[in-house]
Amino acid sequence: MEKIKASILTIGDELLIGQVIDTNSAFIAQELNAIGIDIVRRVAVGDAWDEMWKALDEEQTHADIVLITGGLGPTSDDITKPLLCEYFQTELIQNEDALVNLKKIFINRTLAEKQMGQALLPKACTPIPNTRGTAFGMWFERNGKIIISMPGVPFEMKGMITDFIVPKFKQTLQLPTIGYRYLLTGGLGESAINDRIQTFEDQLPKGMGLAYLPDLGKVRLRLTLHGDNLEEVNRVLDEEFAKMKALLPDVIISDNGDSTEVALGKLLKSQNLTVATAESCTAGNIAHIISSVPGASQYLLGGIVAYSNQVKHEILHVKSETLEKFGAVSEETVKEMVQGTLNIVHSDYAIAVSGILGPDGGSDEKPVGTVWIAVGTKEYITTKKFQFRHNRERNMQLTTNHALNMLIQILRHANA
Amino acid sequence: MEKIKASILTIGDELLIGQVIDTNSAFIAQELNAIGIDIVRRVAVGDAWDEMWKALDEEQTHADIVLITGGLGPTSDDITKPLLCEYFQTELIQNEDALVNLKKIFINRTLAEKQMGQALLPKACTPIPNTRGTAFGMWFERNGKIIISMPGVPFEMKGMITDFIVPKFKQTLQLPTIGYRYLLTGGLGESAINDRIQTFEDQLPKGMGLAYLPDLGKVRLRLTLHGDNLEEVNRVLDEEFAKMKALLPDVIISDNGDSTEVALGKLLKSQNLTVATAESCTAGNIAHIISSVPGASQYLLGGIVAYSNQVKHEILHVKSETLEKFGAVSEETVKEMVQGTLNIVHSDYAIAVSGILGPDGGSDEKPVGTVWIAVGTKEYITTKKFQFRHNRERNMQLTTNHALNMLIQILRHANA
Repeated sequence: MEKIKASILTIGDELLIGQVIDTNSAFIAQELNAIGIDIVRRVAVGDAWDEMWKALDEEQTHADIVLITGGLGPTSDDITKPLLCEYFQTELIQNEDALVNLKKIFINRTLAEKQMGQALLPKACTPIPNTRGTAFGMWFERNGKIIISMPGVPFEMKGMITDFIVPKFKQTLQLPTIGYRYLLTGGLGESAINDRIQTFEDQLPKGMGLAYLPDLGKVRLRLTLHGDNLEEVNRVLDEEFAKMKALLPDVIISDNGDSTEVALGKLLKSQNLTVATAESCTAGNIAHIISSVPGASQYLLGGIVAYSNQVKHEILHVKSETLEKFGAVSEETVKEMVQGTLNIVHSDYAIAVSGILGPDGGSDEKPVGTVWIAVGTKEYITTKKFQFRHNRERNMQLTTNHALNMLIQILRHANA
Repeated sequence: MEKIKASILTIGDELLIGQVIDTNSAFIAQELNAIGIDIVRRVAVGDAWDEMWKALDEEQTHADIVLITGGLGPTSDDITKPLLCEYFQTELIQNEDALVNLKKIFINRTLAEKQMGQALLPKACTPIPNTRGTAFGMWFERNGKIIISMPGVPFEMKGMITDFIVPKFKQTLQLPTIGYRYLLTGGLGESAINDRIQTFEDQLPKGMGLAYLPDLGKVRLRLTLHGDNLEEVNRVLDEEFAKMKALLPDVIISDNGDSTEVALGKLLKSQNLTVATAESCTAGNIAHIISSVPGASQYLLGGIVAYSNQVKHEILHVKSETLEKFGAVSEETVKEMVQGTLNIVHSDYAIAVSGILGPDGGSDEKPVGTVWIAVGTKEYITTKKFQFRHNRERNMQLTTNHALNMLIQILRHANA
């Protein structure tokens, strides 16, 4: 079966002047990839009639489906709708669903005439409902090509992709059966993981792909298999996925697509445990990341941002002798930070970090990037020293990710 | 003068499967816009020979300059260099500078043969030095078009744009004179700012543009003027910029391009003041953002992540009666959180926040999005209530940005 090819066409000056970073395309690509449609090109053009017309023509020479985002607002520089009308030689007619939707959104406000235009849609298109905003999407078909127009607002676009476009693709297109398995690992680099699983990789069934998707301090591994029969695809994937997991038992963060913070939250909740942090160099980022999961207040009690030595000493009760003798960035200090946090916040677990993120503050003995992390309970504390080699921001992220991973591995182990 | 047009061509499968969000293009667009070059298109294609070749041809029909990023690594799926070699009918030769650079980077490691290939460059190109990695860039010229190839690694690409490409454009191209002024404001929405400065906007000299670049809780205003004479452009811009600032004295964060956290750091340092935080719903993010500026330890002492009521009471000494009578999300609680922080961290200023970010935890009286912020000293405390209407993540960012802005306005006022 020929793979179906799609191109993403983004309309809007804001993308060409660097004002906005395009996150829409990544979402669309992920959703379409998951159902077996290949994105072959992504193109952004400005709010310019000729450029957009030419791009529409061109993209149909590259792809079977063109997904357009942007240019659907009610102002005069939003040209997508009039252009598509002319492109498909059709006219605007009032759409009742779009009108009802519009009136619902403006229930307590006056509808200006230019907003009323949002209820007009090209006669030749299949309207795509927008449950999250005023601009409906449009679905055109001509000469075997599908042209889809969506708003540029990520939240509205995502609703259309999930609720309408992907289901309609699944119904109307001949798509391959495709399966994925994701393993999120922490603490090992790409090449170290490769060393462990190369032999496994070499024996993968024909057609199964393994991708390494590295991030700071973590690597996501993805198994992909195309096939004709979904049950068979899932059976083979499950078999290989189990083999892969068995090779990496000590570094697994999640095997179901969960992010680090979601995986950590589930581990803590299922064991009815609480956590607190004592953060020097990350200055609150670890607690903040833990808190980003809805319901985190069940297991995150709080923490201390111990940026100054005074806070380390007076609030966390790190001994002055420890700070003087070993320094703020030392195994002894992070250990005492864990103990102090457990004593004053009364959590089951505490995470403590102290390091030199740069660009300044390094020394021969403790260069920029030196970070100590401690994780533990009243009974035992694990510590680890890291030497990062990136800039301040990345060193901070690495510290955060490694600290969370250390706690996850302890909890997974305790649970086993 | 005809404006010079550029197109950005990004090579790499990772952009088409949604694995990576393209931040390079925004950077390139900003840097080129600043010297008067228009980006007319941005195109991403996979690591596929034919697709890339066609895209190269096509982009030259749209633009005078094509900037390619990606596909320069040492592995076999990195096809940019061999393709450009064939495209420009030239051959690879060893480049001495690239070799010296490579040996420097591998000083303590063995250079594998595929890495040695990084020192080979097409004969027909002007090499672009890479001070931050192994892959040199390439600059080709043919038929009046400029084709530039850079690595996809953002840090390396940025070095080439700043140190080599922009200076060479300035030297060799006839660029328009263009000037910008940026005013970062906090606390007022786009339309509220518009109400204040509409009359000013209406009287702007011909050719001067004003753009509103809204972000969460802040709006960046940009004045742009093209002209022939740089001195004249700057004189007119300064004049109008002063008028605009005079209309927004109470909401200015910075007038020199500084971010919120950099502006805050400068205000604290120049007044020799320190700050600490007490964060419930943001769980450390405010301290973390303050700490992201190198040297922040001069003014950030630390803080308390007071996620649980127990931490609010036991560590920050918020009274039990206050928590019982008014609740954790109340003016009284954030005020006592400020006082408690000042007492235990001994900073000059403290910021305290408490709110319900959602999706759960709201009530009729205090719906999701209710946030109280207090900022103050031992002498006085300012409080403000907010009602945000976004998701958890955006409500958290809004809380952070408004809290930082409140402190900035106090410090700017105290300084005046």
